Amino acid sequence: MFSTGGSDGGVTPTPSARLAGLGLVLPPPPTPKGTYAPVVVSGGLAYVSGQIVTDEGRIVHPGLVDAEVPTDVAKDLARRATLQGLSALQRILGSIDRIRQVLRVGVYVASSPGFVRQHEVANGATDLLVDVFGEAGRPARASVGVVSLPLGAAVEVELLVAVE
Amino acid sequence: MFSTGGSDGGVTPTPSARLAGLGLVLPPPPTPKGTYAPVVVSGGLAYVSGQIVTDEGRIVHPGLVDAEVPTDVAKDLARRATLQGLSALQRILGSIDRIRQVLRVGVYVASSPGFVRQHEVANGATDLLVDVFGEAGRPARASVGVVSLPLGAAVEVELLVAVE
Amino acid sequence: MFSTGGSDGGVTPTPSARLAGLGLVLPPPPTPKGTYAPVVVSGGLAYVSGQIVTDEGRIVHPGLVDAEVPTDVAKDLARRATLQGLSALQRILGSIDRIRQVLRVGVYVASSPGFVRQHEVANGATDLLVDVFGEAGRPARASVGVVSLPLGAAVEVELLVAVE
Repeated sequence: MFSTGGSDGGVTPTPSARLAGLGLVLPPPPTPKGTYAPVVVSGGLAYVSGQIVTDEGRIVHPGLVDAEVPTDVAKDLARRATLQGLSALQRILGSIDRIRQVLRVGVYVASSPGFVRQHEVANGATDLLVDVFGEAGRPARASVGVVSLPLGAAVEVELLVAVE
Repeated sequence: MFSTGGSDGGVTPTPSARLAGLGLVLPPPPTPKGTYAPVVVSGGLAYVSGQIVTDEGRIVHPGLVDAEVPTDVAKDLARRATLQGLSALQRILGSIDRIRQVLRVGVYVASSPGFVRQHEVANGATDLLVDVFGEAGRPARASVGVVSLPLGAAVEVELLVAVE
Repeated sequence: MFSTGGSDGGVTPTPSARLAGLGLVLPPPPTPKGTYAPVVVSGGLAYVSGQIVTDEGRIVHPGLVDAEVPTDVAKDLARRATLQGLSALQRILGSIDRIRQVLRVGVYVASSPGFVRQHEVANGATDLLVDVFGEAGRPARASVGVVSLPLGAAVEVELLVAVE
């Protein structure tokens, strides 16, 4: 299940092996909801479009976080949006093992007035990234509360990664 | 009107030729509304500041999208904000033909509560980019609904492009 | 207090000397409020996480700008958030003198409905950067009004800089 990493003889699990070890399977890659690319690769970086969680074309758990979507559900949406982003990356890169480092994550949380725990929601995205990529998955991050998101999504996650 | 592109002998219209072919003229480059640069170029990338549409110094169609600004007007504002961004790029690069690829577009829509069609507004920006740059103009994108924007603008568009 | 810059024999104050000349001392580096890194350095760029101003672990001047936090207080928060970001950079780079250019600044302002002076708040961040780095501190910028921010912060500032 684990493959050899580095030339030092040490054994480091690859990200895809870690993902499998967590019992996770990537969802189908996302379908763009407009004129954009799921991922653009240029200059050793991959820009991943903002991900909102859909299941068979429908938004999962739409609404405002706090009033309509509990924080823990929103945190899981952030995790699932990140898995969708990894799926988009896998499709274009062939494998998530080509991701060298996660540089930045932007987390937009559709928030009821007064909801101020966007950072807890965002941990749903970045906990997963650290689980899968180790410290290379610990990104710079910005988390903000927005008034609404496309199609009523509760959470949107945007990724920037370095690739090899 | 069209120039030769590539070494394969094919004829590809340049972005500036495509722009002209669409009957479009770039507006005057934007004037910064604070301590920032319209465009910063570094390492083969050009970072374009968030563009809000002004005409002779006044915000065009201010207000919240849905309650005060119809979606189709907002979509046109996204298109015009993008043209302003291209104008800023032309000023610093000499020509938009030096734009190699559009990497990322951020679209911020000042939204009435419950408005969830930010992706349709954002198409105003990215439809134009694909019209002008072809597939090199199809970027990664994040679209979100914000509570308000500087000077009451309804839409703000931010661009990141690779240049040669 | 000033050191020699460049090879042309001219004397240019370093950013750290300019900072001292302004009578400013960097605050303690920020403590992450979740699974993320204060700064990620890769490929000659440093991505700084969104900064909210804290003092001994407490948010300074929480609330919505306009209704609860005056614009000039918010502008000072943007300045202090930027100093925190520079502190995070200093910790990882050893010195802010390794910052070659400020490429992009994102300013998120927790805004009362109808507040449209986010650009004035954002000047608190970018005025400081120009004071410290000169024209190399004048970035591309996006300023938006959000419904709320983590822990009730009024302002969040995100930085992207080129390093040597």
